[in-house]
Amino acid sequence: MIPIGKGPAIDFEHGLVDLNHGGGGRAMAQLIEELFIAAFDNPLLRQGNDQACFPVAEGRMVMTTDGYVISPLFFPGGDIGSLAVHGTINDVAMAGAQPVALSASYIIEEGLPLADLRRVVLSMAQAARDAGVPIVTGDTKVVERGKGDGLFITTTGIGRVPPGVVISGDQAQPGDAILISGTMGDHGMAVMSRRENLGFMTGLVSDSAALHTLVAAMVAVAPGIHVLRDPTRGGLASTLNELAVQSGVGMLIREAAIPVRDSVAGACELLGLDPLYVANEGKLIAILPMEQAETLLSVLRAHPLGQDAAIIGRVTAEDPGLVQMDTKFGGRRIVDWLAGEQLPRIC
Amino acid sequence: MIPIGKGPAIDFEHGLVDLNHGGGGRAMAQLIEELFIAAFDNPLLRQGNDQACFPVAEGRMVMTTDGYVISPLFFPGGDIGSLAVHGTINDVAMAGAQPVALSASYIIEEGLPLADLRRVVLSMAQAARDAGVPIVTGDTKVVERGKGDGLFITTTGIGRVPPGVVISGDQAQPGDAILISGTMGDHGMAVMSRRENLGFMTGLVSDSAALHTLVAAMVAVAPGIHVLRDPTRGGLASTLNELAVQSGVGMLIREAAIPVRDSVAGACELLGLDPLYVANEGKLIAILPMEQAETLLSVLRAHPLGQDAAIIGRVTAEDPGLVQMDTKFGGRRIVDWLAGEQLPRIC
Repeated sequence: MIPIGKGPAIDFEHGLVDLNHGGGGRAMAQLIEELFIAAFDNPLLRQGNDQACFPVAEGRMVMTTDGYVISPLFFPGGDIGSLAVHGTINDVAMAGAQPVALSASYIIEEGLPLADLRRVVLSMAQAARDAGVPIVTGDTKVVERGKGDGLFITTTGIGRVPPGVVISGDQAQPGDAILISGTMGDHGMAVMSRRENLGFMTGLVSDSAALHTLVAAMVAVAPGIHVLRDPTRGGLASTLNELAVQSGVGMLIREAAIPVRDSVAGACELLGLDPLYVANEGKLIAILPMEQAETLLSVLRAHPLGQDAAIIGRVTAEDPGLVQMDTKFGGRRIVDWLAGEQLPRIC
Repeated sequence: MIPIGKGPAIDFEHGLVDLNHGGGGRAMAQLIEELFIAAFDNPLLRQGNDQACFPVAEGRMVMTTDGYVISPLFFPGGDIGSLAVHGTINDVAMAGAQPVALSASYIIEEGLPLADLRRVVLSMAQAARDAGVPIVTGDTKVVERGKGDGLFITTTGIGRVPPGVVISGDQAQPGDAILISGTMGDHGMAVMSRRENLGFMTGLVSDSAALHTLVAAMVAVAPGIHVLRDPTRGGLASTLNELAVQSGVGMLIREAAIPVRDSVAGACELLGLDPLYVANEGKLIAILPMEQAETLLSVLRAHPLGQDAAIIGRVTAEDPGLVQMDTKFGGRRIVDWLAGEQLPRIC
């Protein structure tokens, strides 16, 4: 490959993204070369084609995609770039799989500071490197001012499922234990703290993290895990409802068993939110036979991303599709789906 | 899986997308079930997880992603949905590969008529069915009014490369022939005709089409093809420049050999555009040893998507990175990259 040449240098300090950067011409080629390829640096991306080509072994593959529209782009504990990498790796991992490759598609609003774009791309590159998963192909589009909102990113991931692992949302069985890997609501409240100027409240930091190493450790000791899912949009409550419907089972959880940070609980109270409906980006729900639950719990707690793990309830044969909760006050109530939109653009 | 139940029916005739449809709660689950899963209907999507799981054989895989921000959403010859399917299949096929699966991520502006969303999704489903490629997983986000532009779609595709096929943008060799599969500029001018109210000009129809069956036929007769690429954004001119840089070669093409429809040429003249810089969405460039060029040309012309195929020039050792053209008037000029943004949001 020879240099593209002749284009003016890109001013990453003070420049703004303009429509030329998405036009398919020299400006776009230059931005891709100097920013994206430089940051994500890997041989597959350097192939320089509109697709990446790599060998795969025989086996089961998973594919997942997610659009990220979070506002603001930067929040305590991360940004849209690291979030996109973590979120997509997590959706791969929730099949018990290990990620193989990611793609990234950028829809940029004209006028976005190039410094912001670079900050996001570098963060994304770091998150991918930390996770050991290459970003192998991408795409960049620019829309006119007022037709977007700074930056949207869609990441897609593929991964491999280890032999013998069969994890799916329809596999929950009556009698199974329900575990979560840690505190609920951290991500959503970290984003809200930035939006609502709750900067005075300390301890509100997103839990955004890649869970594939945690999942690898879990699958190694408890290959009989029935269900994994990350409680993102809609939080724990909506995700359990999804799973109850998908598996055709009931669920009974105990409020007192669900870990919530004091800072998160306080911020939720201030804003009138229920932490069970607030998004997480570094937590998972695991459902598995009760007799393996204690073993899994100790594995979770031994991992940096599972230190606050807890068994929060069980799957029931009664009331299929319904999630119920024994409250701290001794009552029992239905935990419904999130009905409306509690926290728009949280991911 | 049991029904989600209890949500009000979605009014696909008169309703509008609202933030609830992206909130992770019941409204989103209902939209996904009643629109996306119903339309794309396939067993992988029906797994109902955040990722699709499927077996793969040993071999080489390709992965590609593209964001679609085309405006308007509907244009003569297609819409953003069919375009997204075709475009991503084509990026898979340009490695000589056959598509295996697609993912689709939707970023919807609040207020988009549900009827428009449904029309796009049904068109996408039809395009995927026609191509024989399933849409196996997806994601839906909704942004506030004024923070998007109706609908953006990012599709990602994976595919398999047949053994022995090595097609890449860096493989062009001096002496190779340069072919194109048909007329240039149809897609871009079809979109412009809608934007600029050139409805009075007949014959401006997008060439949007999935090229994987054409590529399969090509690879079968000419396994020695060096390069395939679809001249989308930036058109033939920018794409040839990309390839000249990537392969470190020069290129010499003949203007008289490049087929352009009269209607496209006329509309270009009216708008002051050069058809060589106008996007195509159902055409490809092929570069291969000169001695196989005539064979490939006849295969192209025998396929419905290659009837106007032509040999338009050759690869040279001189002037690496430079594309030159012998004009209709007997001169020779440099065909440069698209410098600015000629036609924003054409795909």
